[in-house]
Amino acid sequence: MKTPVKIAVTGAAGQISYSLLFRIASGELFGNDQPVILQLLEIPQALDNLQGIVMELEDCAYPLLDSISTSDEPNIAFQDVDYAFLIGARPRGPGMQRSDLIGTNAQIFAEQGQALNRVAHRNVKVLVCGNPANSNCMVTIANAPDIDPANFSAMTRLDHNRAVGMLARQCGVSASDVKHITVWGNHSNTQYPDLFHAKVKGQAATRLIDEHWMSDTFVPTIQNRGAEIIKIRGLSSAASAANAAIDHMKTWKNGTPHGDWVSMAVPSDGSYGITKGLVFSYPVTCQNGNYAIVQDLEINKFSLEMLKTSEAELLDEKKQVKNLL
Amino acid sequence: MKTPVKIAVTGAAGQISYSLLFRIASGELFGNDQPVILQLLEIPQALDNLQGIVMELEDCAYPLLDSISTSDEPNIAFQDVDYAFLIGARPRGPGMQRSDLIGTNAQIFAEQGQALNRVAHRNVKVLVCGNPANSNCMVTIANAPDIDPANFSAMTRLDHNRAVGMLARQCGVSASDVKHITVWGNHSNTQYPDLFHAKVKGQAATRLIDEHWMSDTFVPTIQNRGAEIIKIRGLSSAASAANAAIDHMKTWKNGTPHGDWVSMAVPSDGSYGITKGLVFSYPVTCQNGNYAIVQDLEINKFSLEMLKTSEAELLDEKKQVKNLL
Repeated sequence: MKTPVKIAVTGAAGQISYSLLFRIASGELFGNDQPVILQLLEIPQALDNLQGIVMELEDCAYPLLDSISTSDEPNIAFQDVDYAFLIGARPRGPGMQRSDLIGTNAQIFAEQGQALNRVAHRNVKVLVCGNPANSNCMVTIANAPDIDPANFSAMTRLDHNRAVGMLARQCGVSASDVKHITVWGNHSNTQYPDLFHAKVKGQAATRLIDEHWMSDTFVPTIQNRGAEIIKIRGLSSAASAANAAIDHMKTWKNGTPHGDWVSMAVPSDGSYGITKGLVFSYPVTCQNGNYAIVQDLEINKFSLEMLKTSEAELLDEKKQVKNLL
Repeated sequence: MKTPVKIAVTGAAGQISYSLLFRIASGELFGNDQPVILQLLEIPQALDNLQGIVMELEDCAYPLLDSISTSDEPNIAFQDVDYAFLIGARPRGPGMQRSDLIGTNAQIFAEQGQALNRVAHRNVKVLVCGNPANSNCMVTIANAPDIDPANFSAMTRLDHNRAVGMLARQCGVSASDVKHITVWGNHSNTQYPDLFHAKVKGQAATRLIDEHWMSDTFVPTIQNRGAEIIKIRGLSSAASAANAAIDHMKTWKNGTPHGDWVSMAVPSDGSYGITKGLVFSYPVTCQNGNYAIVQDLEINKFSLEMLKTSEAELLDEKKQVKNLL
């Protein structure tokens, strides 16, 4: 039997984690021969509820689930972890401005970055899902100076999967027939789901769809899909977000399929003229546990404007958290 | 690519289904080369909410998810299905007696049995999870006379997994080291989780545990685990129930591991002296999509009394639904 991998999940009693933990424990993410140790973090007032989830995990008799621990202390939950899913974040409350939210969450992620820096495995892979995910990820990186920034990313895979699904439905094909979708920028409604490089069964998507459908329907639908789900379900996306987190980590670990790429928000190295250090969603390929930003894609005027809008939002968020960078 | 299998799920907007659907669509149950069609049933007032879940399923861009349909009409949802997860049931409301609940639900399952009889594939495998699951299953069978009763079962796999997990923790071993656990009887607090045949790393469990621990701690803890989870979580078991539903269907379809058995509630053929036709949880082995009740286990006096208690409860439930049998 392999040595167990240690996996931290924050916000572990929340809805996304409830959809995530059981799929990790079943072996879906790390494989059928890889035992896992779950190290769950929650705020003190959610620890009782978390205990109920631990009981449910026990009730599955998962052969691969080596052990589970719970804590409200990042220094304990992150001890020696190989993977960290940072899902927990303060939701926007009544009367709260977006800027209040960014400040409060940045503080949480600064502390978690420091804890990761102190106690996590040096090769830990950190996925930030808690919103505002890109800026939270940037703050986490800045507070973990002894860990390579390339070990951190924020999640735009849900947006990516939404874009793949919507284009597939529009063209009447399977999701597996769609390649080279990119979601650029911030995981917010300034994100840019880009179809100009997309292929559908090997054909350029732009030859199959109307340009107005793309700009007037596709782009705003993907940008606002999260809000639409909340409106219909009365709850925010949980199972699809957990699914994207699994996809993200699985691709990062196992690699992208030959001839395709995925979207991940990673620290910008200046590619495509984006300010260095911003956590920006790019098309990436993964191999041997590392990602590389896809280079030299042609960016037309429409796309460039979209990228710049999302960059501007991220620069504005950066200003609001500058005391933690 | 294989022909898609058609899977009906009732109560599709509920919490158990929310944990189940995404795992089915990901390929975890039927395999990575088997496309699936989801045919979702809900009551009219839950169809809007169900639409939000359909959107989330679309947002996963599952390559194996061929299509999804929703309906409030069993004759549509069950059309040609190969597998049916009957999860939806009326929950017990304020002031409702258990007998009221049994009557209301029996009516629902009688209608669903009739619909399965009319439109489902003749080899459909039906798993009843909605409570009271055993009697609901008996009613479903009685109302589907053209389908082999061996194609119906009710779920005690959650109880089974709970028992495996608890014995493993008590003995400090992995769940995969525990074999030959049986949950007998009704999926209620008269169920009997039986350790007298259980093996832990090949050793008789009764040699490793104290008899009083078994009768005074183990049995009542497993019998009342569901209520305990509700107390702690404030919600009933959902993810662990969905997990058990996957385990149940997977074992039924793919077979039991060599040298082990599982617990399934199936129509009694009189084995172990249980009234024929009652849906009773037994130890079973599965092969080629069929189950067989494990025969000739020694039943001691303590066990016999437990089996008889659970049988008596099922006979009492049977009386309450006799107009639908």
